[in-house]
Amino acid sequence: MKKMKAVVLFSGGLDSTTALCWAIARGFECCALSVRYGQRHSRENRAARAIARRLGVKLYEIKLDLPWLGSCSLVNKKMKLPDVKLAGIGKKAGIPSTYVPGRNLMFASLGVSLADSIGAGAVLMGPNIVDYSGYPDCRPAFYSALQKTVSAGTRAGVEGGGIMMLTPLMKLGKADIIRIAARVKAPLALTWSCYSGGKKPCGHCDSCKLRAKGFAEAGLKDPALE
Amino acid sequence: MKKMKAVVLFSGGLDSTTALCWAIARGFECCALSVRYGQRHSRENRAARAIARRLGVKLYEIKLDLPWLGSCSLVNKKMKLPDVKLAGIGKKAGIPSTYVPGRNLMFASLGVSLADSIGAGAVLMGPNIVDYSGYPDCRPAFYSALQKTVSAGTRAGVEGGGIMMLTPLMKLGKADIIRIAARVKAPLALTWSCYSGGKKPCGHCDSCKLRAKGFAEAGLKDPALE
Repeated sequence: MKKMKAVVLFSGGLDSTTALCWAIARGFECCALSVRYGQRHSRENRAARAIARRLGVKLYEIKLDLPWLGSCSLVNKKMKLPDVKLAGIGKKAGIPSTYVPGRNLMFASLGVSLADSIGAGAVLMGPNIVDYSGYPDCRPAFYSALQKTVSAGTRAGVEGGGIMMLTPLMKLGKADIIRIAARVKAPLALTWSCYSGGKKPCGHCDSCKLRAKGFAEAGLKDPALE
Repeated sequence: MKKMKAVVLFSGGLDSTTALCWAIARGFECCALSVRYGQRHSRENRAARAIARRLGVKLYEIKLDLPWLGSCSLVNKKMKLPDVKLAGIGKKAGIPSTYVPGRNLMFASLGVSLADSIGAGAVLMGPNIVDYSGYPDCRPAFYSALQKTVSAGTRAGVEGGGIMMLTPLMKLGKADIIRIAARVKAPLALTWSCYSGGKKPCGHCDSCKLRAKGFAEAGLKDPALE
């Protein structure tokens, strides 16, 4: 039987690398799509390339220059990154300044365009509601509405078998994701999670803290720190 | 009362220029968003700039380089543009080769990102089901699902008044659109509809034929041909 093609939105971070390796392990024929939208650093992109090479997966790299993203601390280098307590990430804290307006909708639309062009039956994204409940575009309600939108608005949805929008990590905690990553042999040593772009992860940003907590809870060592 | 901001997806063609002028006439404070995705020609972009200047509207121009769009005749210059009879544009003819996979979803997502960044309460697009029923992403089902997606996945949808996805031309024939354009004083002489990029419209492509038919039915002269 011919494998089903899948497009995996892929940043080179822990979550999307796990999603990619999960999809490969599930039997999808994967290609990866990295979208650069003026992030603070290109460290993530180098990680994405190295991982795609290691996995033998075709990588599409897209550049989005969006002049209106100046109010987002993940993009605007003049803004201080939030250094919040982990407990502060969640519903009560509201939407964090690292929210990039419409980001996951843009990522999804690019993935859907690629999928509808090459005949892929699935688009995978790695959003996570446990650790990122403050982001409106990480929530299940967004993705279930998105699925209907994609089914209505694509060639595959009208003439073919449709495009599944898959979010395998949605309801998993970081420790669970890391356990899955270990099971599907994701090359975590090559991944980059830190919001800053130094030679080593900063250890202080939300993303570094979440990652460290996850490895601790999973009882595993972070190979990227070795 | 403060005007509501609106983002208008804007190609410089007849439909989106009419949508933009309709929105201005309705009292929205508009900005325009042009997305260039490797179309055959830049004639449309010049038209978009001239119209925005004339209307005194801020124009955002975004470039999307999507390597996978080679199978679309609107993008791939080696492919022949379809020269079909007007009757062939419709459900029975299937999806035409000028369909750009995921185009309106990508356009919408960029418009939503801009709207959610600047606090706009509406995103306007100019799809039309009468003349473009063959395009899956021009149908009402797509836009109603999209509205739910945007309400679920944006800052405005969660914390604010939401973002309305408006498609004022959806169910209008080309002659009706031209009549509205005349009423809201849209500068149609500056618009460009032709799929080709010559000095004058080719007169043969789907888009030119539709436009000519519309002006004839509206009993008006096309000022772009004078």
